[in-house]
Parts: sequence; structure tokens; C-alpha cells
Amino acid sequence: MTGHDTILLAHGSGGTLSHELVERLFLRYFRHPALLRLDDSAVLDPGHLSSSRIAFTTDSYVVSPLFFPGGDIGKLAVCGTVNDLSMSGARPLWLTVGLIIEEGLPLADLERVVASMAVTAERAGVAIVGGDTKVVDRGSADKLFINTAGIGLVPPGIDISGDRARPGDRVILSGAIGDHGMTIMTQREGLRFDSPLESDCAPLNGLVAELLAAVASIAPQSGEGSGGAVHCLRDPTRGGLATTLNELAVRSQVGIEIEETAIPVHEAVRGACELLGLDPLYVANEGKLVAIVAPEAAEPALAALRAHELGREAAIIGRVTEAHPGRVVLRTALGARQWVQMLTGEQLPRIC
Amino acid sequence: MTGHDTILLAHGSGGTLSHELVERLFLRYFRHPALLRLDDSAVLDPGHLSSSRIAFTTDSYVVSPLFFPGGDIGKLAVCGTVNDLSMSGARPLWLTVGLIIEEGLPLADLERVVASMAVTAERAGVAIVGGDTKVVDRGSADKLFINTAGIGLVPPGIDISGDRARPGDRVILSGAIGDHGMTIMTQREGLRFDSPLESDCAPLNGLVAELLAAVASIAPQSGEGSGGAVHCLRDPTRGGLATTLNELAVRSQVGIEIEETAIPVHEAVRGACELLGLDPLYVANEGKLVAIVAPEAAEPALAALRAHELGREAAIIGRVTEAHPGRVVLRTALGARQWVQMLTGEQLPRIC
Repeated sequence: MTGHDTILLAHGSGGTLSHELVERLFLRYFRHPALLRLDDSAVLDPGHLSSSRIAFTTDSYVVSPLFFPGGDIGKLAVCGTVNDLSMSGARPLWLTVGLIIEEGLPLADLERVVASMAVTAERAGVAIVGGDTKVVDRGSADKLFINTAGIGLVPPGIDISGDRARPGDRVILSGAIGDHGMTIMTQREGLRFDSPLESDCAPLNGLVAELLAAVASIAPQSGEGSGGAVHCLRDPTRGGLATTLNELAVRSQVGIEIEETAIPVHEAVRGACELLGLDPLYVANEGKLVAIVAPEAAEPALAALRAHELGREAAIIGRVTEAHPGRVVLRTALGARQWVQMLTGEQLPRIC
Repeated sequence: MTGHDTILLAHGSGGTLSHELVERLFLRYFRHPALLRLDDSAVLDPGHLSSSRIAFTTDSYVVSPLFFPGGDIGKLAVCGTVNDLSMSGARPLWLTVGLIIEEGLPLADLERVVASMAVTAERAGVAIVGGDTKVVDRGSADKLFINTAGIGLVPPGIDISGDRARPGDRVILSGAIGDHGMTIMTQREGLRFDSPLESDCAPLNGLVAELLAAVASIAPQSGEGSGGAVHCLRDPTRGGLATTLNELAVRSQVGIEIEETAIPVHEAVRGACELLGLDPLYVANEGKLVAIVAPEAAEPALAALRAHELGREAAIIGRVTEAHPGRVVLRTALGARQWVQMLTGEQLPRIC
């Protein structure tokens, strides 16, 4: 592509090789007019903004390996930031991409990642409007790290935040847990299973739009305030469902009770977890969401999720309680009740 | 701080140690209400936005060493993104911070960097509204990399872009070149000089605000179109002044002619460059800007820059020509004319 098959330090120098990389690779895949101007910032016209608020988020991705069943670091970087924006009820619009590349990375690998980002961004309906590339010497990074930052617009009347869960609310999970984490883990350990594992990595903005539309007409109950019947949205990534629910319980100062038998887990994930001694509740997901909704919104919300290809296995897995504020309880298949803690320590580094 | 003196992999796990790091370190320094909500995105109210456009940018910082005379990676990460926003004429408002930390980094080093980011953000009048932390195993990164993304608002009537330089325009440089790059380089080589070198790392938004205010009343000449008398703004970072001017010449399809004797270079930088066989035109800056302005705006622009503490050494260094579009010419002290190329290869990796 640039007369070199691997990334050289000079590709990050800001000089001619940097320019070649921008023109021959990035601009081939990322074509937003604001990006094509090659200015230091993308200047963006949000249109009729006066009544919207801006959602702004960032995440870095250091997943190893770079490529895995169901995705790659590029797809993950786009989905992760699209999903973080979606979890605030925003419509994701624009992304920036910051690459930190280890000298010696095959250009073919970089191109595969960039192409994957472009496809995923298109699928999610977001534009990549800016970027930056740094190259570090061999041994100073592991192949490729990606940061994505994103902007979305939050429509009027939407107020989704971790502190809005109320006793009586229902807890909905959009599908089976543990697919992403167990895929990465088994790839890295070189394990093979009969039923193949695949990351659930996916952009959730379409699913969230369906969810919000389905409950938009539900009037707030007395004392509930406005802001909509969807109170909290989170994607349970690092730390898994257990950690996400603990965060919400703490932020809202409510208890959360979930039913073990209601939580969907794919057979392959269950098997891999048993083999490795892991609990799927703590395993990372990259294409699932937890919604905490007003009780009267639970059924329409569930129906909306199930009608979407990314929410077919959605389930109501529990409820919010006044009891034990800040803590999460699991009712096991055998009827026992046990505390669910936040993840302690590190289960698997570089899962995302 | 968290019962550990160094960063462990578990600090990036999303679990309890991650939460401790957020609560006991980041939230102590970064206090914007949107950040304190600990949601997946910061939701921001831009106020009266209907007539503004959004500037959005990102940069990753991999500078080595992390601490150097005049700054550190944290100050650099805030200034760099503030400056990229400023170069589009935007008023910088919000930043996100993405950290990639090598396991084993002393917590004291991380805190020093975070504190420096907070001080620099306050000085620049921007708020850090979101962040993310990843930790990778020893040897998979070199101590600490930082990504910052930023949002600013571009007021109506401002149109600053690399393609707006016109023949007759003047080229203004806000101060002496090469300080940042030579500081890093001599630190890394362990060189010492009589007159100390110090990075020029600084947020330029205040300087840009003064510049724009000073020329706001200058009426556009016929055929010039609106958008203001400041046509292009760039901060000459990686690749130095030579590369920045080449970028502008190419983007605007104009020639640029600069006078060697007009370009300020500090004695210490000149000495270090001679010793190391480097040309200051190619050395990185982190607190300087190049402005290309309409001829009638040159004197008021220069006066405004010189009145600001970060622009005291500002100078008109050249002009835009119809001749040799896309190329830059230097008139040397001896009156010779020579082409100035874009940086080729890598002068010094990890300068920023």
C-alpha cells in the first residue's frame, strides 16, 4: 500500500509516511466530509439542536487477540462506543478513532481492522469524523490499541441514568450472557469446544431505539417525574452482569433481586465456564444491555426487544427492591438466596 | 491510595479495584457533574447552540519520558486536544480521557499525571467529562499512554480551514520553534546544555480568542467571502513548522514563502539542533500556532498575539503566493531560495 508491508515508526511521525497512511488507507474507508478536510478538528453541524443535549464518551480497546470469532478490535471499538452512547438514550452520530500501533504490525492486519471499523460504523449509522495515529517502537505496545470517542444527541424527554432505578422497577436483560468473554478466553487458551463460541459484539443503538419507541407513550406514574419509563440502561462489559447490577444498585441506592433460572446463558458458554471454573455472571458481554424500566413498561419493553434481531433472547430477570439498598441478591435454581458481589481482582486482562 | 503502590492488572478489570481508582483518584481531580454521574456517556447541555457548530477531535499521547522540563504527558494530552479544537476557531468545552496503563506503573506517577491534567484543564477553562482506564500486562505497553478527545463550539461567522489560504495572505508564527521537540530529545539522550531547554507545552485557546477578537471587525475584501480574516490556524506539532506549512500549501493549492531570518528560534534550541544535526523547522512544538490571515489583518493580528503572554515573540514570517502552488520556499539569511519539504521518515519517535 505504501511500499511497506509493515508499520514503521515513521508511519507515526507526522511526515510523508503518515500522510500516505492517511490518504491511502484511512480516507479510503472513512469518508465523512468533515474528515476529508484534514483539519485538526472535525467541525460538525448538529442541525436542530436547540432542544437536544450532547452525549460524549470514550473507551480504549486493548483486546488480545486482535481477531476473534464474531469480531475484531476494530468492530469492538466502534460497537463499544456506539453502545456507551446508546446507554444514555442518545442517538450516536460521530466517532473519532485514535490508533496506537506497535512498529512492525503487518499493514494487512491494520487494513483488516480499519475495514471492519468502516463496515461496523456503516451498520450502526455513525460517521467516523476524525482520527490520530501514533506508532511506538517494538516492545512498547502489543500490536494495536484503539481509542474511540463518540458524540450522540439525547432527545428531549429522555433521562436515563444509573441513579434512576426505583423499587418495583423490572430488570430486563436483552439476551444471553458471557459470549464475548468466553470467546476471547478460549481463543487465548487455545481451547476448542463442540459448539463454537462467538463474541456477541454488536452495535445496540437500533435495539435501544426500538425499546425507547415502544415505551414512549407510557405516561409517568404519580411521583415518578418525567424522563421516560426506561430508567437505567447499561451494557454489561468488563465485570459482567454482576458488576453492572451492583453499580446500578449503588448509584440508585436500591436493592436488586435476580432469578438465576431467568438469565439466558448459551450451552457453549456454560460448558466453557464450568471447565474453567468461571461464573458467567462476571464474564464480559459486548452486545447485550440491561434495562431497568417502570413496571408498567416491562411487557412492552420486552416485546420490543424480542422483536429485534439482537434481542430475541431478551428476558425479565428480576426486580428492584426497597430492601438491601446498594446490594444485589440472586435467587438460585434451588431457591437459595445469595449475595452477588462486584467483580474483585481481574478475571481476564485485555478482554476488550 | 488503594492499598497498592503500583498499578495492577485488576485496576483495569472493571471490578472493585477499578472502582477504587475512579473514586479515590479520578473523581478527586476531575469533578464535572456529568462525570460524577458515572454513566457510560457524559450528557451535556450546550446551551444556546442553535447557531453554533460542534468541533470534535482526538489525539493519543505516547511521549517518553512521561515527565520533562515544562510539562508531562498529562499536561501535553490536555493542551494538545485543546489546541486542536482551538485551531478550528472553536471554544474548547469538554474533554474525555482514555488511559492505557502498563501494569506496575507507580500510582504516584499516575497521580502526578492526573493532577497535572486537572490543573491544565482548569487553566484552559475546559472540563474533563468522561474517561476510561485499561491496564495491560507488563511489557505490553510502555508505562502510560493517554488519549484525549474534545468538543468545542465554533461561533457563527468563523470558517477556519486548511484550504482557505489565498495569495497575498500573511503567515504569522506565534513564537519560537523547536522547544518541545528539543527538550524531549535532549532528555532522552541525557544531554545537558548551559541554557536550559523547556517544552513550550501550553493551551492556546486564550491566545486564539484574542486573535479572533482583534480581527473580528475587519470587513471581508471583495471576492473573499465571509468566514473571517483568519483563514488558517495550525499548531505545528509532529513534523514541525515545515510539515505544517506544506500541509497548508497543498490543501489550499497555493505557494508559501517564508524568511529564515524572521523565524524566532531560541539560542538553546539552535545550539542543540546544531549539535544533533537537526533543522528546527522540523522539530515539534506544543504551544505555538501558525496563522494565515488576510493582508489587512496582519498587523492587528500580530499586535493581539504579542499582547498575550504566549505570543510575545510572534512574528510575520512570510506570505502566500500564487507561484509554485502546493510548495513552500525558504529565503535563507544569505538570500538563497530553497524548497522546504515535508518531513520524511521519523525524526524522533514518541515526541508527543
